[in-house]
Amino acid sequence: MTKDNIAAYRRQFENELFTHVVPFWEKHSPDRENGGYFNCLDRDGTVYDTRKHIWLQGRQAWMFSTLYRTVDRKQEWLDLAESGVRFLRDHARRYDGRVYFSMTADGKPVYMQRKIFSECFYTMAMAGYGHATGESPYLNEARRQLEKVWDWSKDLSKVGRPLYDGETPAQALAIPMILLNLIEEVTLGESGEYDEEIRECIRRMLLHVHKERQLVFETVAPDGSFIDNPDGRFLNPGHAIEAGWFLQHWARRLGDDELSQTAADMVRWSFRNGWDQEHGGIYYFLDSEGYSPVPLEWSMKLWWPHCEAMYAHLLNFRLFSDKADWQAFSQVTDYTFSHFPDHKLGEWYGYLDRYGHVTHRFKGGPYKGCFHVPRALLLCWQTLKEMETASG
Amino acid sequence: MTKDNIAAYRRQFENELFTHVVPFWEKHSPDRENGGYFNCLDRDGTVYDTRKHIWLQGRQAWMFSTLYRTVDRKQEWLDLAESGVRFLRDHARRYDGRVYFSMTADGKPVYMQRKIFSECFYTMAMAGYGHATGESPYLNEARRQLEKVWDWSKDLSKVGRPLYDGETPAQALAIPMILLNLIEEVTLGESGEYDEEIRECIRRMLLHVHKERQLVFETVAPDGSFIDNPDGRFLNPGHAIEAGWFLQHWARRLGDDELSQTAADMVRWSFRNGWDQEHGGIYYFLDSEGYSPVPLEWSMKLWWPHCEAMYAHLLNFRLFSDKADWQAFSQVTDYTFSHFPDHKLGEWYGYLDRYGHVTHRFKGGPYKGCFHVPRALLLCWQTLKEMETASG
Repeated sequence: MTKDNIAAYRRQFENELFTHVVPFWEKHSPDRENGGYFNCLDRDGTVYDTRKHIWLQGRQAWMFSTLYRTVDRKQEWLDLAESGVRFLRDHARRYDGRVYFSMTADGKPVYMQRKIFSECFYTMAMAGYGHATGESPYLNEARRQLEKVWDWSKDLSKVGRPLYDGETPAQALAIPMILLNLIEEVTLGESGEYDEEIRECIRRMLLHVHKERQLVFETVAPDGSFIDNPDGRFLNPGHAIEAGWFLQHWARRLGDDELSQTAADMVRWSFRNGWDQEHGGIYYFLDSEGYSPVPLEWSMKLWWPHCEAMYAHLLNFRLFSDKADWQAFSQVTDYTFSHFPDHKLGEWYGYLDRYGHVTHRFKGGPYKGCFHVPRALLLCWQTLKEMETASG
Repeated sequence: MTKDNIAAYRRQFENELFTHVVPFWEKHSPDRENGGYFNCLDRDGTVYDTRKHIWLQGRQAWMFSTLYRTVDRKQEWLDLAESGVRFLRDHARRYDGRVYFSMTADGKPVYMQRKIFSECFYTMAMAGYGHATGESPYLNEARRQLEKVWDWSKDLSKVGRPLYDGETPAQALAIPMILLNLIEEVTLGESGEYDEEIRECIRRMLLHVHKERQLVFETVAPDGSFIDNPDGRFLNPGHAIEAGWFLQHWARRLGDDELSQTAADMVRWSFRNGWDQEHGGIYYFLDSEGYSPVPLEWSMKLWWPHCEAMYAHLLNFRLFSDKADWQAFSQVTDYTFSHFPDHKLGEWYGYLDRYGHVTHRFKGGPYKGCFHVPRALLLCWQTLKEMETASG
């Protein structure tokens, strides 16, 4: 790649983020009556379900807080973030700290999962808004909620998950991964406060990384060993790539070169295994032993693994200057930009079939909101700007 | 259609059922050590997950009981049924009558749903085996279990489903439908014992049938009115078609011509709405207002809606002698037989993408077992035989 290449990509990400993506959410998502955001938005932004999904309320509040803090101190962005934070605080958190999964537009609970991710994205919103405003009550609330999440993560029966005799003892990559990311958001990467927890998250994440097979398993036994059933064989390349860059951020801060190398390899292996050689794009799921993955959607191409892969490869390249990383970044970026964006009506489609055809016309749904697209665009744009400056 | 046509289809279903489908399960599914059946079987019958899914244990025990009772008193079929029934009785039912969703091969619980379908298929197995053997303890157990399921179906909080303030009051078609089918299996269609319950199931099912729009909604308000969100707009054409023939069986027994007409129309409307005009096959899900259905797999073509549609149209034709029903039967049967069967290694593939390509090579999984394929083949074969006799 040349300096011109870098500048061209930088402009592409900048234009996408600020012209096509952020304005879509600014325009269509605000619930001006109740606060918070409509997150089920059709292709043109029409609200097709007024219910609010709390993962996405938390993530969007974090996103606008982060845009305000790191890009531009626009009052509209802070106001949007504040609206989400207020909705979350007023409605989404139960007396015991548990957070609902979905609510009516006016904040009545619809559903609560026996998982801890709603709580995580609630925490992320408080942390993001606290840093954006510098107001310590939000940061303190984020810390308190993180403590609860940490506690529950060690024993999910505390959030109502029953345990059965025949279950295979197992741990999920998602748990230490989201906790490590939350610590990053609460501390903005400053070490000290959570050093022990950070080490524990990294230790647990590395149990999922099988170097001899160059695979990152979603579910392993508590000692990291392989579980030979569909859960144990389950690969989620986009998730493993995201885990790679989460780890990479801490590897650099800790000055841990071995961890940095492992984190970079997680991204490279998972991209190589996950890329569909025939039709392009990253498979959603795979089975490590080549069986058909059980979930029906395994061969679909989703927006978010592609978002994660763009930033993870760019970060690898920036750190290691290996042309293969640039090549991978360029490959996934070209696929992504030629398949997901909707420049006519804004934002991105989220779901393609294996062949790259759009299967769902909506821009926001119960699991797709204002998060992976703008986060990846922002991280790539910032990284490319740093590269331009460094090479300037 | 001519008499030759009917005979040709009869031979096709007969050959498929007894040469390609039943032998696959006889050969690959028995767990000779623990009893019951392996239900996660790869393309060639290899067990890729030893865990047992109780819906499928119950359904397979029912299927072999029914083959024994209605086709041929083969001892192997009864032995196979008995093995499943014994596994279910020894392991799957908890002290309170709740039935697990999945278990280890040797019968330790892995997971229990907050739904009542495991209990329903347990009941179905006991009823089928009781009728096959004439042994009343099994029939009595089926009756007792049906009573529990009936009770729970009126208040799912009794099986642990939490209720939240913001939930839209709603009822699911699946509940009265499975109950009506269970009553058919327990009584073999004899009226008397459950007349009140039968009327109640029919009443509740008809709330989902919106004649003016010619649509069958999966979820409606308790008074049958439309709910304008993705749940309320949700259509599952294969499920509505199955509901149609469940209702048709009772309509004939009750001599209710209006109900018979409605049941036939449910099949016709749902097939017309559900058929993919561009690529053939029946869509898995649709949205009544034309939004993208939220589930990722909405445009896939699954084996079971096609199984239901073959029998439902054939039954319509046999009852109403309308050529359009025969045309629909022939259309869906030709698609089905040209896409799903695997004559090299037996049984059928379960999952195709929108374009008709096989996406999952396995023959059995957590939701696909020895049930929809042999049941539909058996029902069609029996119906075609009756038509041959009648026209002979």
